[in-house]
Amino acid sequence: MKAEIIAIGTELLMGQTTDTNSSWLATQLPALGIDLYFMSQVGDNLGRAVDTLQRAVQRSDLVLTTGGLGPTEDDLTREAIAAFLKEPMYVDPALKEQLIQWFQSRGGRMAERNIKQAMLTKSASPLGNPRGTAPGWWVEKDGHIIVAMPGPPREMQRMWEFEVAPRLKQRLTGEAIVSRLIKTFGIPEGTLDEMLGDHLHGNNPTIGVYSKTDGIHLRLTAKAGSEAQAWTLLSPLEAAVRQIVGQSLWGTDQDSLEGIVGTLFTERGMTLATMESATGGLIASTIADNPDASSYFKGGIVALTPSSLVAHGVEADLIERFGMVSKEVAEDMARAARAIMDSDVGIGITGVSSVPDSATRATGAVHYAISHAALSRGFSANYPQGRLVLKQRAASAVLFELQKFVSSLSAAGKL
Amino acid sequence: MKAEIIAIGTELLMGQTTDTNSSWLATQLPALGIDLYFMSQVGDNLGRAVDTLQRAVQRSDLVLTTGGLGPTEDDLTREAIAAFLKEPMYVDPALKEQLIQWFQSRGGRMAERNIKQAMLTKSASPLGNPRGTAPGWWVEKDGHIIVAMPGPPREMQRMWEFEVAPRLKQRLTGEAIVSRLIKTFGIPEGTLDEMLGDHLHGNNPTIGVYSKTDGIHLRLTAKAGSEAQAWTLLSPLEAAVRQIVGQSLWGTDQDSLEGIVGTLFTERGMTLATMESATGGLIASTIADNPDASSYFKGGIVALTPSSLVAHGVEADLIERFGMVSKEVAEDMARAARAIMDSDVGIGITGVSSVPDSATRATGAVHYAISHAALSRGFSANYPQGRLVLKQRAASAVLFELQKFVSSLSAAGKL
Repeated sequence: MKAEIIAIGTELLMGQTTDTNSSWLATQLPALGIDLYFMSQVGDNLGRAVDTLQRAVQRSDLVLTTGGLGPTEDDLTREAIAAFLKEPMYVDPALKEQLIQWFQSRGGRMAERNIKQAMLTKSASPLGNPRGTAPGWWVEKDGHIIVAMPGPPREMQRMWEFEVAPRLKQRLTGEAIVSRLIKTFGIPEGTLDEMLGDHLHGNNPTIGVYSKTDGIHLRLTAKAGSEAQAWTLLSPLEAAVRQIVGQSLWGTDQDSLEGIVGTLFTERGMTLATMESATGGLIASTIADNPDASSYFKGGIVALTPSSLVAHGVEADLIERFGMVSKEVAEDMARAARAIMDSDVGIGITGVSSVPDSATRATGAVHYAISHAALSRGFSANYPQGRLVLKQRAASAVLFELQKFVSSLSAAGKL
Repeated sequence: MKAEIIAIGTELLMGQTTDTNSSWLATQLPALGIDLYFMSQVGDNLGRAVDTLQRAVQRSDLVLTTGGLGPTEDDLTREAIAAFLKEPMYVDPALKEQLIQWFQSRGGRMAERNIKQAMLTKSASPLGNPRGTAPGWWVEKDGHIIVAMPGPPREMQRMWEFEVAPRLKQRLTGEAIVSRLIKTFGIPEGTLDEMLGDHLHGNNPTIGVYSKTDGIHLRLTAKAGSEAQAWTLLSPLEAAVRQIVGQSLWGTDQDSLEGIVGTLFTERGMTLATMESATGGLIASTIADNPDASSYFKGGIVALTPSSLVAHGVEADLIERFGMVSKEVAEDMARAARAIMDSDVGIGITGVSSVPDSATRATGAVHYAISHAALSRGFSANYPQGRLVLKQRAASAVLFELQKFVSSLSAAGKL
C-alpha cells in the first residue's frame, strides 16, 4: 500500500509552525508495511487543497491529512474532501449531540460555528476524538482511502492509534515490517557511524541513525512475508548492534530516561532529590513526567544564585573558594539535596546558563554530581549551543548517568 | 512571485528527521514579498524527484530545494534538475579545484565520489558554500528560477543569506508583506473566532488563528507595494483586534510569557519564588528560560507529596482538612514559597497530575495561587488531557495570571 501525507494549514507555510505531524505519522507506517512516497504541506486555500488531494489520490492508495478540522472558517479540510468527492456535506445529528455534550461537560456552550465539526458526507464516516472537538473523517472511494485527522498532535496521535491504525491493519495483508529503536547516549554520531561500519550498508535489515536530545537513536528495520520472519531477520542485527554500542545503550523503543530511572528507583525502594541551578527545574520536571514519580522523588530545589544555594544548605565557603559554577559546588548541592529532602540519592547541577555575568567563564560549562551514602560521582560537560540546548542536553546527561549510577550501586552490592 | 519548497531525502519520509529547513525558509519569504503556496518532501528517488520538480515549476515562479547535494549515490538533486532541464552534467574545473582545496586545507584528500559536487549544467551557476563541500545551484529557465541548496541547516541558512536572498532581492520589485503576531490566553479558539467576526474575512490584511500551548495566536498579515504601505493597511486592523481581545492579550511577535514576566519583575525590582507539585518544576524551568531570571527568581521548590509540602512549610492541618489538591493548599504553598525564599511574590500550584491515586478525584483538576503581602489570588482550572498537557497548560496559565497580577499590583498602587 502506497501512502501520502498532506498537512493542511497556512501556519505551516508561514514557517511559524513546523509540521511534526507528518514525521510522526511517517514513523508509524513502516510497522504496518505501508510505503510512504510523498509528504506535502498546503495552506488553508480550498482550490490548492483540492488540487493537492486530487494528485495524491491519483498516485497513492492511502492519503492521510492532518489539520484544517477546527471550527473556524479557514479550516477547510472537510470542504476540500467534499469538493474532491463532489458530495454535499450535511450535519450528522449524532455528532452534533456529542459536540453539545462535550461543551456542556466543560461548563460551556457550543459556539454556533462549531456545528461545522459535526458535518459528514455520504462517503465519510466519523473517527472519534475524545481529546478535542473535531472528529476525523474516514473516506473510501474507488478503492482509495482518505483519512482526515485533526492538527493538534495529541488529538491526531490518539486518533491514529485507536481509530485509524486498527482499521488499516484489518485491510492490510502482505509485507510485514518490524523495527527496533536502540537508544544510546554519550557516543557522537560520527563515531557511532564508524563503529557500526558495514552494518549500515545492509538493504534488509537496515539501520538509520538519528540524533535526538536524549542521545543518538538507531532504528533497525526488517521486512519479510510475516512479522515472525521479519523478526528473524532483525534479531541477529540487533544483537550485533547491542554488542557494539555496549554501555552507551540506555533503552529501546518507547523507553524514556525518566521511565528507566523511575523503574530503577521503584524496584530498589530508593528515593531521589534534586538541586538545580543551570537546568532551572527541568530535571525535576522531567523526573516528574513519570506518573509514579511521587513514590520515589522526594522533591527538588531550584536555586539560581549563590545566596539561595546557601539558604538551601550549600556551604558558602565552597562557593567562595571555587565559584558557583564548579565541580565542588555541584557535589555539595547533591549532598545538600539528599540531606534536606532526606533521600537516598541526591543530584546537584550548576552551570553558566543561569548566571548572567557569564562573560568571564567558558560559556556552556556544566558541572553535575550524584550523591549516595556509599558513593558519589562528579561530572563536567560543556554545552556551548545556548541556554535551551544546554538545559535539555544536561538534563538528559544527568538522567543517563543517574541510571548507570543506580545500576552500579546494586552491582557493587552497596544497596 | 510564487514560490514552492521541496525538501529531498528519504530520511524525511522515515519520519526520524523532521524537515525544519522548509519552515525556516518559509519564515524568510514574506519579507521579500514572495508568496509560498506549497511545501513538499520527496525521497531520494530520481523519478519522483523529477516529477515533483516538474509540477513545482509549472505552478511556481521560484522553486527552492534543500538536500540531496551530498557526495553519495543516493544524493540525486543535481541529477533530478539536470533530467528536468534535459541538460547533460559536466565537471566544472573551477569547482573541482575549490573542492580539492577544501579537503587539502583540512588535511585530507578528496574522495573520488566528491567529484559529483563539482558538477554543473548549462543553465546552472554555482552558489558558494563555505560551510561544506556541496555548492548550490542557481538555475534559470524559461522565466522560472530553481535554487538547489544543501540539507544541513547551517550550510543551507548561510547559502540563503549570502547567496540566494541577495540575488532574489535584485530580481524583485514589487510586493512587501508585513505581519504582526498577537498572543492571547484564556479565550477558546471558537469564541475568539466569533469575537473577530468579519475581520476574519478580509483578503488584505488577513488574520490567521493558531492554537499554541501558550494560548491562541493571531497572525495579521498585509501586502502592499512597500513595507510602509503594508503597515498602513495593517495598523487599523491591529488596533481593532487589540480592542477585541482586550485583557487576554499578553504579547506580540517574539514575546514569551517568561520574557514578559521577567521584564515586569526587573522593572519593579521585585522577586519571585515558586512551590510546585502538579507541574513538577516546569514553571521554575520556564521562568529560568529567561536569561535574566537569576536577578528576580529567588528559587523554586518541587514537592510531590504531602510530607514534602509540610517539610517546606505548608500547614499539615490544611492538607488534612482540604486534601493536597485544593485551593487552600495552593494558597498556602504560594505563601510558604514567599516565606521560605524571602521573595515579594510566591506561586503555589497543586493538582492531580502528580498523585498516582488520582482515581478518586476529578482527573486534571489544578489549583494555583499567587501571593504578595498586599494581595493574594487563587485560581482553579481543569486540564483533563493528560499529564504533559496539564503541565504545559498550567505553566502557561500561571505565567499569564502572574503578569496580570503584577500589573494590577502596580495599578492599585500597592508597590
